[in-house]
Amino acid sequence: MDQNEKPYVIGLDLGGTNSVFGIVDANANVVAETSVKTKGHGDNVELYVEDCLTALRKIIDQVGGIGKIRAMGIGAPNGNYYTGCIEFAPNLPWAKGVVPLAKMFSDALGIPVAMTNDANAAAIGEMTYGAAKGMKNFIMITLGTGVGSGIVVNGQMVYGCDGMAGELGHVIVEKNGRECGCGRKGCLETYCSATGVARTAREIITSTDRPTLLREIPLDQIESKDVSIAAAKGDEVAKEIFEFTGRILGEACANFATFNSPEAFIFFGGLMKAGDLLLNPIKRAYDETVLKIYRGKAKMLVSQLDDAKAAVLGASALGWEIAMETAVHNG
Amino acid sequence: MDQNEKPYVIGLDLGGTNSVFGIVDANANVVAETSVKTKGHGDNVELYVEDCLTALRKIIDQVGGIGKIRAMGIGAPNGNYYTGCIEFAPNLPWAKGVVPLAKMFSDALGIPVAMTNDANAAAIGEMTYGAAKGMKNFIMITLGTGVGSGIVVNGQMVYGCDGMAGELGHVIVEKNGRECGCGRKGCLETYCSATGVARTAREIITSTDRPTLLREIPLDQIESKDVSIAAAKGDEVAKEIFEFTGRILGEACANFATFNSPEAFIFFGGLMKAGDLLLNPIKRAYDETVLKIYRGKAKMLVSQLDDAKAAVLGASALGWEIAMETAVHNG
Repeated sequence: MDQNEKPYVIGLDLGGTNSVFGIVDANANVVAETSVKTKGHGDNVELYVEDCLTALRKIIDQVGGIGKIRAMGIGAPNGNYYTGCIEFAPNLPWAKGVVPLAKMFSDALGIPVAMTNDANAAAIGEMTYGAAKGMKNFIMITLGTGVGSGIVVNGQMVYGCDGMAGELGHVIVEKNGRECGCGRKGCLETYCSATGVARTAREIITSTDRPTLLREIPLDQIESKDVSIAAAKGDEVAKEIFEFTGRILGEACANFATFNSPEAFIFFGGLMKAGDLLLNPIKRAYDETVLKIYRGKAKMLVSQLDDAKAAVLGASALGWEIAMETAVHNG
Repeated sequence: MDQNEKPYVIGLDLGGTNSVFGIVDANANVVAETSVKTKGHGDNVELYVEDCLTALRKIIDQVGGIGKIRAMGIGAPNGNYYTGCIEFAPNLPWAKGVVPLAKMFSDALGIPVAMTNDANAAAIGEMTYGAAKGMKNFIMITLGTGVGSGIVVNGQMVYGCDGMAGELGHVIVEKNGRECGCGRKGCLETYCSATGVARTAREIITSTDRPTLLREIPLDQIESKDVSIAAAKGDEVAKEIFEFTGRILGEACANFATFNSPEAFIFFGGLMKAGDLLLNPIKRAYDETVLKIYRGKAKMLVSQLDDAKAAVLGASALGWEIAMETAVHNG
């Protein structure tokens, strides 16, 4: 390789709606970007990958061709690090079974491709470029449509025996609680995701007569950002919704602390736009309920990565990991 | 060192009632053993250590003197691996604050001394000599007077940012549930320890008229082993107590799986004498409640270590770890 050639990796943030590709240099600059719709290919994963490759080849050409790309990292729902497969992802129409997506991209592009779930990718991104630089033990909680998590112990991602560890969004926090997309009841994500916040709003509106700005919005169109806007205007019900959400999340984090006694919880995702409205009740509930020996130890931080780029950067950080491993294996 | 000299380590199992010392060879043979009462020294930790040293020196002499001992490992409640201190152990009268026990023994004996909590020591013992040999990701659950845990990720003990990780007995499983010794409510150990089982028995006896052999025992003297004996005789109430206990523990384990997706849960301690009476409901509740992606993956095992020696062996395994580290540091 020419010493003057600047190497890149590809990061793929595979979301339920969009699949965003970024070509990233070693300094975390996204030098080229493209995206395709994740849905619209029915259950045909080949068609999806073909669309991705068409879009991807254009931006690969922009940076000087595939010879400059060292590896690719994918952050995807239910992405398995060990196998490179997406396993039973309920929100991806072409991934109802086990889909070997990393291999499909690797075969097509001729570069190493690694995959993990989106929250793990975010944690790797945070460790590589963000608030978790230098941390050896932390828990990343992603608050989006669902609740995801990436756990780091002794400086290493926790993948578990099967590559699928770190699904704290599916810890059951309320027995016989709200129905979850996973088929069970009372999972953390039914309360503390963006969807969960909207659900709480609808419950209060339909079960009480309390006045709130949220009544001005059609019931089935209320989103978590409407609750943020109303709370920012001083709406009592909206503020209570964040209190309720933050309390459940803070109590859950107090339970999580017993596992790896993290130096920080790092919160990331759309819901964190609510800022202190959500972060303060998380902190209060955590401090009130955490076991005495852990009190005052874990920082409660908001991700330092730009929301729009964090997922792609996280996936790219995984790309750098696999690029370096491959370089070592090849001497 | 003479090549013919056989090296040993000391293992100390520091329990609430007894402190058991074993001198252990590299093949897990306990070649000498002694014990002192843990209590009876008021809040005077110097007095406790002095008593320990008096007893310990006798067995050290039996194996040929301190020159043959490479290191010592201590398994103690609230034992901190990083600092070698016992921190706020509610059941140890001389450890209400922070007690630098590893240093005290190290200074007195002139050998390296490492400490961790008793459940972590059990996990290290299980990895070194028992059911977890070769496992990289597992969770050890100790069911004694309390509930302890030792968690292994990527082949390493999880100590966390402060050396105090792995306190799954204090995960809150029931909001506003039973009062716990830690000052909070609803911790796993208030239900699934030996004490918790006896508590369940007393609750049923005092709140119902149901016939049970357990009524023949004075209420304040019922122990978990009485429940085992009654259940073995076919007592319906006693069997239900284990069903209830196992269900809570199995559901808790299903939540724990989301953390490190372990290849096994290994149960250890007095309560496991109940055998399948307890293990079967644990398995059933786990299978019914665990997230689909983890289903059928984790084995539910009972410790393979001899109950009487497991804690000392676990502590000794930690001794070997520190002995090897010290040997490496000294070139």
